[in-house]
Amino acid sequence: MKWLHKDLLDVSQLSRPEVMAIFETAGRFQELQERPVKKVPTLKGRSVVLFFAEPSTRTKTSFDVAGKRLSADTFSLAKSSSSLTKGETLKDTALTLQAMAPDAIVIRHRSSGAARFLADRLDCAVINAGDGRHAHPTQALLDSFTLTQEWGSLEGKTVLILGDIAHSRVARSNVFLLNLLGARVRLCGPRTLLPPAVKTWNAEVYSDLNQAVKGVDAVMCLRLQLERQQDGLLPDLREYSRTFGLGPRHIELANPDMRILHPGPVNRGVEISSELVDCEQSLILDQVASGVVVRMALLFLYTTRKGEEQ
Amino acid sequence: MKWLHKDLLDVSQLSRPEVMAIFETAGRFQELQERPVKKVPTLKGRSVVLFFAEPSTRTKTSFDVAGKRLSADTFSLAKSSSSLTKGETLKDTALTLQAMAPDAIVIRHRSSGAARFLADRLDCAVINAGDGRHAHPTQALLDSFTLTQEWGSLEGKTVLILGDIAHSRVARSNVFLLNLLGARVRLCGPRTLLPPAVKTWNAEVYSDLNQAVKGVDAVMCLRLQLERQQDGLLPDLREYSRTFGLGPRHIELANPDMRILHPGPVNRGVEISSELVDCEQSLILDQVASGVVVRMALLFLYTTRKGEEQ
Amino acid sequence: MKWLHKDLLDVSQLSRPEVMAIFETAGRFQELQERPVKKVPTLKGRSVVLFFAEPSTRTKTSFDVAGKRLSADTFSLAKSSSSLTKGETLKDTALTLQAMAPDAIVIRHRSSGAARFLADRLDCAVINAGDGRHAHPTQALLDSFTLTQEWGSLEGKTVLILGDIAHSRVARSNVFLLNLLGARVRLCGPRTLLPPAVKTWNAEVYSDLNQAVKGVDAVMCLRLQLERQQDGLLPDLREYSRTFGLGPRHIELANPDMRILHPGPVNRGVEISSELVDCEQSLILDQVASGVVVRMALLFLYTTRKGEEQ
Repeated sequence: MKWLHKDLLDVSQLSRPEVMAIFETAGRFQELQERPVKKVPTLKGRSVVLFFAEPSTRTKTSFDVAGKRLSADTFSLAKSSSSLTKGETLKDTALTLQAMAPDAIVIRHRSSGAARFLADRLDCAVINAGDGRHAHPTQALLDSFTLTQEWGSLEGKTVLILGDIAHSRVARSNVFLLNLLGARVRLCGPRTLLPPAVKTWNAEVYSDLNQAVKGVDAVMCLRLQLERQQDGLLPDLREYSRTFGLGPRHIELANPDMRILHPGPVNRGVEISSELVDCEQSLILDQVASGVVVRMALLFLYTTRKGEEQ
Repeated sequence: MKWLHKDLLDVSQLSRPEVMAIFETAGRFQELQERPVKKVPTLKGRSVVLFFAEPSTRTKTSFDVAGKRLSADTFSLAKSSSSLTKGETLKDTALTLQAMAPDAIVIRHRSSGAARFLADRLDCAVINAGDGRHAHPTQALLDSFTLTQEWGSLEGKTVLILGDIAHSRVARSNVFLLNLLGARVRLCGPRTLLPPAVKTWNAEVYSDLNQAVKGVDAVMCLRLQLERQQDGLLPDLREYSRTFGLGPRHIELANPDMRILHPGPVNRGVEISSELVDCEQSLILDQVASGVVVRMALLFLYTTRKGEEQ
Repeated sequence: MKWLHKDLLDVSQLSRPEVMAIFETAGRFQELQERPVKKVPTLKGRSVVLFFAEPSTRTKTSFDVAGKRLSADTFSLAKSSSSLTKGETLKDTALTLQAMAPDAIVIRHRSSGAARFLADRLDCAVINAGDGRHAHPTQALLDSFTLTQEWGSLEGKTVLILGDIAHSRVARSNVFLLNLLGARVRLCGPRTLLPPAVKTWNAEVYSDLNQAVKGVDAVMCLRLQLERQQDGLLPDLREYSRTFGLGPRHIELANPDMRILHPGPVNRGVEISSELVDCEQSLILDQVASGVVVRMALLFLYTTRKGEEQ
């Protein structure tokens, strides 16, 4: 099988069999993570540029680990390394990076569409690690991979996405992917943090968390950017946490077997109670582990354009 | 032989035979450093996270070189990469890092006890690269390793630690280790820079440097944080340097063969005269070289938990 | 053949056959860049320190890619990693780095002469990646390599260097190297941005760009530091761009086959029109690609001191 895509801009580019192929590849890499030597020579001699124009140690480190576990060389350009971009357009920066002949450029950027802009202009693979409010496909893939590992399949499951939906690229990508994989999606958050077009999304919208959690199989909490308060979009945090923070009582309302996800970093006691972060149903650390193997799968598929056994 | 410790929090955890085992392993790596190809495949496929929440290029680079010379993959998280920790507890950051399945986390942190806090919560090896005023075991080990290379043994030697004892994790770790290896320890510094409990330490305390150096075999100068002046703990630097700065006349008072150490970076002309930094008895650059091989030994022992031939 | 130089401080150290040897080695590495696996084991086990005391993501990344493609381990110390140098002299920092036994130290520093200062004190190879206004030998080598790839030889060609000559280490190194390789050099820029001693340089000086470009085979635009305006050395940018910015009309005046170079990052519309950056004669991205292979050649020659087949 050949991998047909040059770039990963959003999950909406992927068919269900393609997502399954990513998960199968990730699953094989996961077995590897249980051995003392977690590295394979698959991408030896390949170069992956990690171009993070927005700070993100967590995602960058995850890609860095993923690349090195495949024996690729990784090159990190963080925002602080801004001399590259000073007085230079994004296109020129990207063409410069490409001229060094990398196999993939992983990009995070504050502008929605930055990844597509590059993908249209570069020959090498472009992987979107989060662009503005638009998309965060690798996060959505690792979230669904984590749930698939738990449940076997997402078919017929109900997943609630909770919090600041309006500003969240994680929510956007997850709504699409969960639907693609056969799950029903609910959204819940304060009206000020719901996107204007939310009614057109393939999801049920709730304004009452107690109603929203009833019968769900998993809740994905979103990180609350505390800056939203200054924007006047939020009441005080205590009030927010009382109304939209996930707590132990919601597990009873939902389903004793309800799984809990959060992309991290967590504001304990704000979007989720500290107790729930550490509880048995929490998959938060599984998500981090899944992040490495899903990104290994993506780097493998997009740099080699092969889908077979690595 | 198996290596029994999961973590290196301070030298006080180590027995004398264990210290000797570290030094023997470091000695074997030192021979390697004289070859053109200084690298061994010992830790190929292993991952070492360098989590430096306090800036320290010197120690971080030393661990980075050590890890790569053993063929491990290293991942640096510097303080500037703070998005990982923003609004996130140290524990959550550490659990996130661990979920990426590293073999060891090397941590530097401004809080005394940070390394132990992590060690209690993580399954992987935790190596303390300096926590607050508490401990800096790898520095103490490289200091004693350097002196052992010079003398064969520290038994019966007298070592003076000079300067800001109160704020120094280097001093704390060295007092313990020098005693363990059979040396006598003297301390000298202004009263304002001696810790309140210094009388309980296993060391003789001097307030007059001319007295303190008499007959010593080595002086370990401590770096003076120039901020101490603003805290009102120091007279002006010229005065400090005249009273507690090590100069050529002290070599005559001490012992013409007296060795000089300093953990770096040096404030030339403050805690030590520029002349002495570069003199024949200065072991300052030997300490840097020892740092790499001692840290190679530690990474090897703590990630493989084996003590035999690598 | 043995490579006789320990350090690369400026192109003025090199003979024409030596430059040709660098270009031949770079040419062999260039073929490698067209394969999927672009890496060779040539410098496996060698260490290269990238010590950039001035920010420069572009040059640092180029050296990083070059080192890793040769299988060397690279260690980046950026300016932000300043704890190494805080209160420490450049010499002490360098000696500390050397004590970690690297094979080469690549240095960028704001002081002219910094590279030579280190080279005189260190045993390992020192490669100047730009020191003050003095020299930038690797940029000059990659510029001439790029033109040699285009033309076969620079013999008899005329090259115009355009812009802020006074503050440019790129210009200084290029004037020497272009002459060495048989090209004629022209310089053009506002009087305030010409160095006082320009008449002693082996180049024709023009103050009128329309005159300067007549019949030239290539124009090397220099990056304009926008700070120069605050120094009172520049009229407003629009005026500068009208008088000294390279535009399409200059191609007609010069030679329809005229090549265009720029060391990057480009201020589009200031020192060069946006149209010309992207035109067919532009070699700007070729320069970036050349940068990697020329630096591979230099790292190979200076760390192994061999000139034969790698």
